[in-house]
This record gives sequence, C-alpha cells and structure tokens, in this order.
Amino acid sequence: MKKIGVLTSGGDSQGMNSAIRSVVRTGIARGYEIVGIKRGYNGLMEKDFIPLGSKDVSDKLYRGGTFLQSARSEEFRTEEGQKKGANNLKEEGIEHLVVIGGDGSYRGAAKLNDLGIKTYGLPGTIDNDLPLTDYTIGFDTTLNVVTDAIGNLRDTMSSHERVSVIEVMGRNSGDIALHAGIASGVDAILVPEQPWDIKEISYKLKDRFNKGKTHSIVMVAEGAGNGEEIAHMIKDHCGLDTRATILGHIQRGGTPSAFDRVFTSRMGHEVIRLIDNDIYGVALGIENNDITYHRFEEIFEAHQPPNTKLYSIFGDLV
Amino acid sequence: MKKIGVLTSGGDSQGMNSAIRSVVRTGIARGYEIVGIKRGYNGLMEKDFIPLGSKDVSDKLYRGGTFLQSARSEEFRTEEGQKKGANNLKEEGIEHLVVIGGDGSYRGAAKLNDLGIKTYGLPGTIDNDLPLTDYTIGFDTTLNVVTDAIGNLRDTMSSHERVSVIEVMGRNSGDIALHAGIASGVDAILVPEQPWDIKEISYKLKDRFNKGKTHSIVMVAEGAGNGEEIAHMIKDHCGLDTRATILGHIQRGGTPSAFDRVFTSRMGHEVIRLIDNDIYGVALGIENNDITYHRFEEIFEAHQPPNTKLYSIFGDLV
Amino acid sequence: MKKIGVLTSGGDSQGMNSAIRSVVRTGIARGYEIVGIKRGYNGLMEKDFIPLGSKDVSDKLYRGGTFLQSARSEEFRTEEGQKKGANNLKEEGIEHLVVIGGDGSYRGAAKLNDLGIKTYGLPGTIDNDLPLTDYTIGFDTTLNVVTDAIGNLRDTMSSHERVSVIEVMGRNSGDIALHAGIASGVDAILVPEQPWDIKEISYKLKDRFNKGKTHSIVMVAEGAGNGEEIAHMIKDHCGLDTRATILGHIQRGGTPSAFDRVFTSRMGHEVIRLIDNDIYGVALGIENNDITYHRFEEIFEAHQPPNTKLYSIFGDLV
Amino acid sequence: MKKIGVLTSGGDSQGMNSAIRSVVRTGIARGYEIVGIKRGYNGLMEKDFIPLGSKDVSDKLYRGGTFLQSARSEEFRTEEGQKKGANNLKEEGIEHLVVIGGDGSYRGAAKLNDLGIKTYGLPGTIDNDLPLTDYTIGFDTTLNVVTDAIGNLRDTMSSHERVSVIEVMGRNSGDIALHAGIASGVDAILVPEQPWDIKEISYKLKDRFNKGKTHSIVMVAEGAGNGEEIAHMIKDHCGLDTRATILGHIQRGGTPSAFDRVFTSRMGHEVIRLIDNDIYGVALGIENNDITYHRFEEIFEAHQPPNTKLYSIFGDLV
Repeated sequence: MKKIGVLTSGGDSQGMNSAIRSVVRTGIARGYEIVGIKRGYNGLMEKDFIPLGSKDVSDKLYRGGTFLQSARSEEFRTEEGQKKGANNLKEEGIEHLVVIGGDGSYRGAAKLNDLGIKTYGLPGTIDNDLPLTDYTIGFDTTLNVVTDAIGNLRDTMSSHERVSVIEVMGRNSGDIALHAGIASGVDAILVPEQPWDIKEISYKLKDRFNKGKTHSIVMVAEGAGNGEEIAHMIKDHCGLDTRATILGHIQRGGTPSAFDRVFTSRMGHEVIRLIDNDIYGVALGIENNDITYHRFEEIFEAHQPPNTKLYSIFGDLV
Repeated sequence: MKKIGVLTSGGDSQGMNSAIRSVVRTGIARGYEIVGIKRGYNGLMEKDFIPLGSKDVSDKLYRGGTFLQSARSEEFRTEEGQKKGANNLKEEGIEHLVVIGGDGSYRGAAKLNDLGIKTYGLPGTIDNDLPLTDYTIGFDTTLNVVTDAIGNLRDTMSSHERVSVIEVMGRNSGDIALHAGIASGVDAILVPEQPWDIKEISYKLKDRFNKGKTHSIVMVAEGAGNGEEIAHMIKDHCGLDTRATILGHIQRGGTPSAFDRVFTSRMGHEVIRLIDNDIYGVALGIENNDITYHRFEEIFEAHQPPNTKLYSIFGDLV
Repeated sequence: MKKIGVLTSGGDSQGMNSAIRSVVRTGIARGYEIVGIKRGYNGLMEKDFIPLGSKDVSDKLYRGGTFLQSARSEEFRTEEGQKKGANNLKEEGIEHLVVIGGDGSYRGAAKLNDLGIKTYGLPGTIDNDLPLTDYTIGFDTTLNVVTDAIGNLRDTMSSHERVSVIEVMGRNSGDIALHAGIASGVDAILVPEQPWDIKEISYKLKDRFNKGKTHSIVMVAEGAGNGEEIAHMIKDHCGLDTRATILGHIQRGGTPSAFDRVFTSRMGHEVIRLIDNDIYGVALGIENNDITYHRFEEIFEAHQPPNTKLYSIFGDLV
Repeated sequence: MKKIGVLTSGGDSQGMNSAIRSVVRTGIARGYEIVGIKRGYNGLMEKDFIPLGSKDVSDKLYRGGTFLQSARSEEFRTEEGQKKGANNLKEEGIEHLVVIGGDGSYRGAAKLNDLGIKTYGLPGTIDNDLPLTDYTIGFDTTLNVVTDAIGNLRDTMSSHERVSVIEVMGRNSGDIALHAGIASGVDAILVPEQPWDIKEISYKLKDRFNKGKTHSIVMVAEGAGNGEEIAHMIKDHCGLDTRATILGHIQRGGTPSAFDRVFTSRMGHEVIRLIDNDIYGVALGIENNDITYHRFEEIFEAHQPPNTKLYSIFGDLV
C-alpha cells in the first residue's frame, strides 16, 4: 500500500486545509495511507508524523491556516538536512510527498525529489507570485478579505475627508494590490512592477478633493513602499489629512472562499491521479480553468510577466 | 461622438453594477456618451433613458443587484416590440447597446443586432448556465453566499442530529449546487445533469449516522427536485429527522466578490475595445482567464456539457 | 467535591456553548467537577454523561449551536421520567444541574428541583420570550443575522420593484420582528402582540411606490401570520409584485455576537457563585445590565408585556 | 415651527447615521424642521447647514461613519467661536441642537446651552468612556468587529505557534479590550484601569505552550501600552515568537449592529420627546435598558468606576 506524506511550509494561506483534506480523502478512497508532517520541514527533521484518517480532516474545510502548522527549518536548508529528511521519509515507508507552499518550499521539494522521494508541489501562498498557475491557494480569499476590509473602512474614512493609504501584502508581486484595488474602486495603486510618481498621485488626489470628493484610497503593495511613509509623502505634497492602515496578518485570515475550496479540492484529487500514474517531481497549478502540472525546473525557470493589461484597465476606471 | 446604451435584463446578479460602471467609466475615458436604460427591455419600450456620468456609478461597485433595475417585457417579445426598441435607440442616436443578462436577454440582443443596433452581451446570471464562458457574472459571489449560509447553518443543525436538505438555485444547471456542495463538504449533491437514487442516498446517510456522524447535508439544485419533497423522501427511507431549507433570494444578495468585481471590470473594458474596433453582435465571456467574445449564433448553438469530472471528484471527497 | 451537571434543551441558540464554557471554566477554577449531559433531558434518561474539562470547551466560544446537542424527550415529560432523571443524577453524585433552554426546559428544571436536585435555569432561546430578563441567549445574535440577511436582500429586491415579505421566528413574541425590523428600516412590522390591517398596509405600500420608492419590506413574526399568505394578500390588495422569504433555520445560525458571548460568560460565572452560596431553584437573567435571578415560580407567574413603546417609536421612523 | 439642528463631532462611530435618521424622521413626524450641520462644530462656524428631509436619511441606517461628517474646530474652542456658533444658529432660527459625540463634544454643547441654544448630547464614541450610560453609540458594533477580526486571525496565528498581541482602541477606557477579550477567549487582557506585570503574563503564556497550546492572544487597550512594545517585551521574557497586530481604523468600520441601530433609533426619538417637553441642556444615555437623560454638569462630574467585576470574571475563564 502506498504511503503519502503531506506538509505545509512557509506562510500559511487559506485553502491549505482544504488541499490536505482532498489529498487525504481521495488518497484513502484509492486505498492509500496518508501521513501528516507537522510544522513543515521542521517536522520532517524531527519525524513529527501523524497518521491522517478521513475523520481527521472533517472539520477543516472551512478553516483558514493549516492544522498541520508551518514553520521555517534552518536544518533542512543544509544538504545534510535534506538527506536526513529523505531518510526519515524512507524509514517510514513514505515514498510520495506533497508539499504545499511557495517558491522556497518548492525548492526543498525539488531537492527531496532528487534524493529519491517522489514529490508534488501545491502553490500555497496568498501573494499569487508563482509562475505557471493562474491562481495560488489563498489568493482569492485574500482579495475578498482585503476588499471587505476596505468596504468597512470606507464609511468611517469618508466621515473625515481623508486620504487613506492601505498597505497590503506582496513583496515581489503587486497582484493583491492590483486586484483588490480594482475590486475596491481605489484611486491609485502602487505595485513593485510599475513605476509611480508620488507628486503626480498627490496632485490628482488634491484635484479630486477640490472637485468635491470626500475620501480617497491609495493602495500600496508592501513591495512598492511603506504605507506610513507614503502617507507622509502624500500629506507633504498636497496637504490633505492622510492616514495609513497596514492590514497585516488579517489578510491571511478568514475562512477560505468557495473558489479556494473547490480549486484545492481539485488539486488534491489531481495529486492522487499523478501518483497513480507514476508522475512526480512536479508542481500543480490551475491554467485555463484546468488543473495542470509542470516539472519543478520549469517553474524555477519561468518568468511571470507583470499584469500590465490589468493595470491599464484600472487606469480607465478611476 | 459615439452614444452607447446599457441595460440589465432578466434576474439580477451580483456584479452587474460593476459591469455597468466599467462600461461607463471606460467609455467616458474614450470620449463616448453612455445612456442607461431602466428596467431592461421595458425601459427600451418606454424610452426610459438616463444619461450616465462618472459620478453616477461612484457608489455602485460594491452593491449587489442592478441600479438600472430589471424587469420582463412582454411587448419586446413581439416583432413590433423589437422594431420599436431599435427605433427608440436610433431616435436617441444610440448605435451601440450593451445587454447584461442571461440566455433570454441575449436573444433579444441578437434581434436588435439584426435590426441595425450594434449589440454586446455580458453573461449576467448567477446560474453559470451560459456556454462559452467559464464563469457568469454573480456565480462566484453566489457560491460564497451559499457556502457562508451553510457554514452558519452547520452548528445549529449538528445540535439536533438532523439531515439538512438545502435547495439552491439552478433550474437547468447544477453548477451552484455542485461547486457550493464541494466547498461546503456536503454529503450528497443532487443536480439535474446527473441521475440520483434517493434510496441509495438515504441508506448512506443512515450508515453515516450509525457510525457516529451527528449531521448530514444534502444539496439540491432546484432543477433536480423540490427540497421539501426530497426531505420527506429521505425521512421516509431512513427515519432520520430531516429538514429542508430553501435558500431563495438570499442567493442573489450580498456585495459582489472581488472576483466578480475584477472580472466585470475587465469585461466592461473589453466592450469598449470591441466598439473601438467595430466588432459587434457578440457576447463576451471569460475563457482561459482571458476575456473572449463569440457571435450570438455561436452561443445559441453551443452545448455546455455537464461537469462530470467535478462530480466524480466530489464522489471521492465524501 | 461538588459535581455540577449541565445540559441544553429545546431549540438551540447562539451563545449556549459560551454559557457551558463559562460554567465549566469557572466551576473548575473553584475546584468543582463538571459533567455534560448530551441531547437535553434525553441524555439524562439514558445517562449519556461526559466529564467536561477546561480543554473540552476550548474551541467552543465562537461556535453557534450547542456541542452538548439538544433534543426533545417524551419520557422526561412523565412523572416517572422526571424521577428517573433525578435518580440518574443522584447515582452519579450530581447535586447541581444547570439547564440552558426556554420555558419548557425551565419547567423540567423546576420539577427536578422539587425532586432534590439543585437546579439553575439559563434563558437559552432566540425568541426573547422569557420574562424577568431583558435579553435571552442568542437574541442579539439573531437580530444581527436577520439584519444582515435583509441588508443582503435589499439590493437584489430593489432591482425589481418588489415588495418583500420576510418571515422571521417568534411564535409568541414579536421581539425579533420588532427589533430587526427597526434595525433594518422596514416599512411594516407584523407581530402577534399588535393588531394589523392588511388593507391599510397595502395601501401605504402602494402609496410609497407611487411616490417613487422602488422597494418595500414587510417584516412578519411567524406568530402573526404566514409569510407566503401575507405576500399573496398584499399582492391582491395593491397589485405590487410581492415575494415572500422565510428566513428559517438561518436565524439560529452564525457565530454568537460579542454581546451574547460576554453576557453568557457572566451568567455562567453567576451560576457558580449561586452554587457557592447554596442558592438554587432559580432562573438567571440580565436586568439593568446586571445578572439577576428569580425563583422558577416567579418566572412562570410573570407576565411579559408587549413592547408597545418600541412599536410606537417604529411608527414615527417609517 | 421648531427648527432643530444636528451635528456629529469628534471621532465617528457606527450608529451615528441611525441616530441622525431617527432625529430627522421623528422630528418630521412631529412637524419640525431639521437642519444638518456639516463637519461638526466646523460647519457651525462656517454656516455649512443643509436641510434634512425624510429621503435624505433613507439609505443611511446601515452605513457606518457619519454622512454629516466630523472634524475638529480650533475656532469653536475659543469663547468668540462659541458665541459665533450660537449666533449662527439663532440667525437661522435654530433653537435646538443635537450634538452626537464624546466628552469634548459634550463640553461644546454645554457652552452653547449656556448661550441660549437648547442642546442635547448623544453618546457617540466607540470607547464606551462616557458616564451615566451603559453603552455608547458604536461600542457594540466595535466589539463585534474586533471579535470577528480575532476569529479570522485565530487560524492563521495557530498555524505558526505564536503569541499574538492585539492592540485595540481605548485611551482612557479598557472597555473594548475587556469585552472583546472575553468574547474572543483571549489569554490576557491589558487595560489602563488595572495593573499588569509583563513577567507574570509571559510566564503564564510560556507555561501554556509547554502544556501543548499552539497559540495565545494578548489583548491590549491602547491606553495600557503600545502593542509592538508589549510584543517585544513578551518575546524577551519567554522567547516565544510574538507578533503585534494594531487593529486601527478597522474598529470604527462596518455596518452598525442591530443593537446600535435600535438603541440610536430610540435615542433620536427621545430627543424629540424632550424637545416637546421643553427639557434641554442634557445628555442622553441608556440605563437599565431605558433611555435616560442627565444634565451636562452631572455627566462632567460623574466618575465611571472600572468594571473590576468583569475583569475578575475574565480571570476565571482563562
């Protein structure tokens, strides 16, 4: 009987639990044994393994975070750590390993694959910063969380004739800022992939207040700049009362959206199909509304171009 | 200067306002004049036209429903009605018409196109029952609304050892039931596209209660059967306390999801691009994460196969 | 060491879990032993007892329903059943029993008190239909759930120029309809405690549509009439398109409000204080923002006058 | 015909719009004229007055913030400013003024009352830091917002074995922290009214992690200390990974709770009743579930004792 390990690594994202559940339930339906590895590669080092049955994932579908927990492991970054990890899996008879996480987690998975463990990557990061997939796990939920938060802020902000600068996650990718910014009808979006000019933005905001607007929102991806600093700069340039809100961990929170639940249910199912077909060393994605897979090397080499088209669509909506 | 009319027709769906806003704002950015037509084809009959400026759509992005309102028009179903509609538009100098609605609304739009009005269909229906688009406007929001409602029901239902039968919308398409059912971790899904056997379902439910489950949910698309009747049938077959909940109009409610807002913003933008390129007589969709378009005839001839794969994925998750 | 039993009985309400948690945690802090009784008086008949430790209530605070579950017991309604219940408790050394439920549950608790068990009633019903307490457990949450549901319905309803009749819970008490109706800005409220004239209401609704309103809401407590029937009557009287929505079990759902959590936390604490002071045979309430208690007999004799003042306040707000 | 002015002053709070609506609608029902004053005392200085009809408050009931807006006025703090304010009102024939705000706003209202304007204070502040009222406007909503935010954070936080320090509003009053902390089942609450020892707290948190807990929350009122600093101190004392979240403006956001809507509807009604009875120079409150009023002087002299009982109840729940 095949034994399949599953772990979540890096920052947690909404939908990870749903992905685990799908691997567990679909795997069990095929007669496989599923082993949960706690706290990412950390648990791999310490053999913190737990058997996962159908009931263990019963209440998990609608919960954010990851019940297997996640943590960084310094040890696993070393070559010895990786060998130890592979050995620990082999000793338990675990031939297949599903790793849910971002780019760093994929690199670890690729190493284990080289060491003889058949590994599968699932794109678990809210930032949408992985190539060869249209969406990453948690991205859709995070957009809804950010959009709801701004919806709640709007009335209080417009009570005081203020500019609100809202800083959202995204160190390398402005996708959260761009999508949530469009969805929230903000007045300016600052992303790391696009140049911006604070003078020009400040001038436009001022112009809008002069024309009767009582409130403006500037959305900032953390990779584009610091929310507090940008708020100060805007205030300096146009004199408007400007406040920064750093959304922080709230963005990782909340119950996964229906999209993230269905999408991860499909991905978990596909992992088991790949195992059945002896395909491995791959990361899964969703492309063209289909679950697809690519070799890890392809992912590492791929370049994700910035969504300039969506950025220009935004320009016409303001 | 081009004059573009826009109307919403048929049942409302979350995101219609966002689509209108995008047509208005992008159109104005191109120097076009936008005219809102109230209450669907009804307002077309009565020349209930209102000019739409940028500010008229300011507060609409995050509101469900359609501020242009929607209604059925008997008159427009007749040939004379359609001619009158085309004439009313021509008299106002409206050459282009954007129709946001479902299949019936598209048929009206195609007629107007034949009568010399350049028309564009946007898939406005929560049911996801239009071909040649992966998603319809409001479908994603409705899935979240249904999933949230079931999340809220779960604790109260499990307090009483009950089977809950939940009837959702979808006369011809089981997509809401299928997606929201997977997202909610229900125990059975009844859709019009798949055969089902109430005895078998009842037997499985009973079996699960015998194994210690305190609550089961059966999801029913309205096209597959009546929720109340199915609840009675289950009770008769297995003796479990079974209650039906008809979600009703709540499914059309709520603020549009980030997905529906971004998607409709992109669609509105694409409509204006098509107008710029003198392409017309088409309905827009989202395919492969791109905004696409097809001639109305293609849409009418297309067959949307049931999502049997997703249905079988569900089978392994229960 | 004192042994305290706790059960939930009748329809569940949001906040029951929080009340149980407070009894458990505060009791344990005093060195007492807490025993959960499953499925209301049913579990009392069958000695379905489980020990409750601090961790058993860890994740319960924010969950609706009752993890001890609830059910009706025919056996306990008989005198023998009640004696059996008292004996079952005595055999386990359970001297004190906390009963969370409505009027029927209180009557059972009073019987057990007469049979030598020291009992305590907590007002667990969303209907707010218990005397000598300003609020019952779950009432505040239910108001928020109903108000949110109507907020979500408003945009879709106003898209179609309709009258919405919304039926909410409350067989004997119109409190949910009255409070949620004021909170939702509805146009008419029908409660069992007040006479109403469908002709007059229909006339007013028609008048408002004539003056430009696009949507009206009529709130109906189930004790005042059937939502579907009232919708038909309104349609007959004024010709407006009228739709009924029966909110149903959704009203019992959702995570308890902060108010219900704090209030039940205080109540659980007070139960333990009463046990410490050898006071029993009482039901607790919240009056004047203080947790109070009254002998069961007082509760049974008390008359709760209808809130005519709030009803007249509503009259001026429409 | 009586002319009644209404303004909102200081920080906005959820329910202010509902209070304005009730003053407007109830006043109009009595035949009075209502005048809205924009941006607090600022608009009073600049005679920024707008007539308020029944329709102007139609869509306001479920919106947070204040559509009359709010701002600080330096000019009104001076004696001349106050005289100017009184004169501006008299010139418009406004004899009665309703001021919705906190302590500072009340002081301004009292000055205007001394200058011959009949004034009424409504307790508009989320902090619950006004005496002689059990609740202030927006407090209940804010508790729900904070409790929901923590609910959303819980799963992501527990994915990483962390201590979360959550800073909430309350410069002088720990009421938000205390109530929302109990409602959220946090592990420690730091309020300005109670001494706390970071060593002792850190020790307890460490102890709990040693016993298997994966996540702890420390709630901090801003008046008790800075969230970031407290997070550092905890980390220093016990070595646990500790993160601070400053909830910020989100706490003022969101649609008002049913409680805040009903309560403010009642208050607005009572203001009109007081006007009818020629009572003035008073602030309203809710005590014993009744709408009450006290002379401004009483409010200024009253001392609000800290809720030590609730704090000790919390101690037994952890």
